[in-house]
Amino acid sequence: MEKVCVLGAGSWGTALAMVLAENGHDTLLWTHREEQAEEIRTLHTNKKYLPETVLPTNLSATSDITQAAIHATTIIVAVPTKAIREVCAKLVPHLQQKMLFVHVSKGIEPDSLKRISEILAESVPVEYVEDIVVLSGPSHAEEVVLHHPTTVTAACANIDAAEKVQDLFMNQFFRVYTNEDVIGVEIGGALKNVIALAAGITDGLTYGDNAKAALITRGLAEITRLGVKMGGNPFTFAGLTGMGDLIVTCTSVHSRNWRAGHLLGQGMKLQQVLDQMGMVVEGVRTTKAAYQLAQKYNVAMPISTELYSVLFDDVEPKVAVDALMMRMKKREIDDMR
Amino acid sequence: MEKVCVLGAGSWGTALAMVLAENGHDTLLWTHREEQAEEIRTLHTNKKYLPETVLPTNLSATSDITQAAIHATTIIVAVPTKAIREVCAKLVPHLQQKMLFVHVSKGIEPDSLKRISEILAESVPVEYVEDIVVLSGPSHAEEVVLHHPTTVTAACANIDAAEKVQDLFMNQFFRVYTNEDVIGVEIGGALKNVIALAAGITDGLTYGDNAKAALITRGLAEITRLGVKMGGNPFTFAGLTGMGDLIVTCTSVHSRNWRAGHLLGQGMKLQQVLDQMGMVVEGVRTTKAAYQLAQKYNVAMPISTELYSVLFDDVEPKVAVDALMMRMKKREIDDMR
Repeated sequence: MEKVCVLGAGSWGTALAMVLAENGHDTLLWTHREEQAEEIRTLHTNKKYLPETVLPTNLSATSDITQAAIHATTIIVAVPTKAIREVCAKLVPHLQQKMLFVHVSKGIEPDSLKRISEILAESVPVEYVEDIVVLSGPSHAEEVVLHHPTTVTAACANIDAAEKVQDLFMNQFFRVYTNEDVIGVEIGGALKNVIALAAGITDGLTYGDNAKAALITRGLAEITRLGVKMGGNPFTFAGLTGMGDLIVTCTSVHSRNWRAGHLLGQGMKLQQVLDQMGMVVEGVRTTKAAYQLAQKYNVAMPISTELYSVLFDDVEPKVAVDALMMRMKKREIDDMR
Repeated sequence: MEKVCVLGAGSWGTALAMVLAENGHDTLLWTHREEQAEEIRTLHTNKKYLPETVLPTNLSATSDITQAAIHATTIIVAVPTKAIREVCAKLVPHLQQKMLFVHVSKGIEPDSLKRISEILAESVPVEYVEDIVVLSGPSHAEEVVLHHPTTVTAACANIDAAEKVQDLFMNQFFRVYTNEDVIGVEIGGALKNVIALAAGITDGLTYGDNAKAALITRGLAEITRLGVKMGGNPFTFAGLTGMGDLIVTCTSVHSRNWRAGHLLGQGMKLQQVLDQMGMVVEGVRTTKAAYQLAQKYNVAMPISTELYSVLFDDVEPKVAVDALMMRMKKREIDDMR
């Protein structure tokens, strides 16, 4: 049995805390809202994010960041990408030793173009960092809490740290691979939300499954082109954290990025969509970052670029998607590279 | 305007004949049943396969193979893989010149382990073959006839022949790439039906989207391993005819291989499933071929192998799927190669 702390009680942080508690680990879930912490402690529910789920009674919760800092030497960071710097700033003054950080967030910071592990490395002084591991893969929280079989990847350049995370989470329903390719895992996880928004748009336009399959395929090709240029391993993009997570995000009813795209495709404006969803839609920020990365690394990313024009330049979704369909070279393999 | 003949009036042959006729080509659709040919000629419908569709009035139909043999110098072969040798045997005596053959079938012949272009090359004397092109990709007929945007690939070692096919079919809704990799396109198209059967089974077992995404990802990995060993280009498997077609077949309600798997996962036996479907389920024959190919080329194909045991050795679907979940190495990338 280990001690583990999870920062962030959204649906994914809560589901992962549940896996850890069910595996017998002494798990503390931190949220900045005391009423939510109290609900988890006393009622064993988190109605806002997982309305149907009864949480394990051995899962404790707190809104006190000092408790979170001292509970364990392994910290799972499950807050939205936008909040990571702020939460780390609160946490760091209370740290007392080296910690193993595991992040499960999927995004790229616009403008700085940092990956999450880079943001963490900047936000926590090196004397408090044992290692930083990313855990990612096709894993809707709603299915994990129902014990539906789920397969994910823990990645770290130090494979021993990845294997420690594998051991913490692994059980009969929740299967964990390891991988050394942090860049590939982080880029695949972040950019799939961009393609999921675009896939939602084609569905909102009722363009059908043929068009969506083509979009997902071309989407993975452009993610891979970028990721390999950034230093990722092409095999990673063909794996669970690339293709696998992309498929689940583009085809599942649980995906909030797909849902946001669907509303856009039906004609709603971006601000209306965000207001109506009331949850973080990571893909919107990530589209801006993807657009900037395409320019920085000089990589053709037609889907991300068209989506950027829809989100930030008020181009009609139908105009953008039709432009994508029409923009093709004659030979498929030339277009993949 | 060109003259084109389509052999086989199932849903896909009919939809492709419709694309050709709408593109202005003088298109003749051949079916071995005269009542179906008459329905297409006089009522402009093909109710059994495309119940909602009104066919173009310039699409003609025949059940006379001699007419089919002389109508055009381009022949689209759209019959089930099982019927190709038999239909060619009927056609060949009436051929009078070299023909461009385009096949759109997805399968591998069990025991002989021939791809469709190899079966065609064996079935038609070389003096009647100008070239053999394969047309493949994520393309449910039901969406093509509704003019939903669809993207496919025409492949031939002779790229001029592939471009001729591209020109015949290309229009605003139906986009055609070319590729020189016939092996990769044929293997991807055939083996996706095996994975679709397996995906249907996990859905029939209500294992959820996380498990299905993992299965599709691992499925493409094993198709790619085999296909590359057979001489295919790895880029092809990451493209429309590999990943794209796999996604649409595993996630769309239109897919009959997925539907067959779904019934198996719910507990029905194979013969019951085939009786109830009343249509060809290519994935069943292809699973046998995949199992044999894995042995011949000495490639690990765990999903195809487990599915073979369900279809032909009466192993319970749940036992087979759980075995797949449990069978993993520790490191993802080792497992992909």
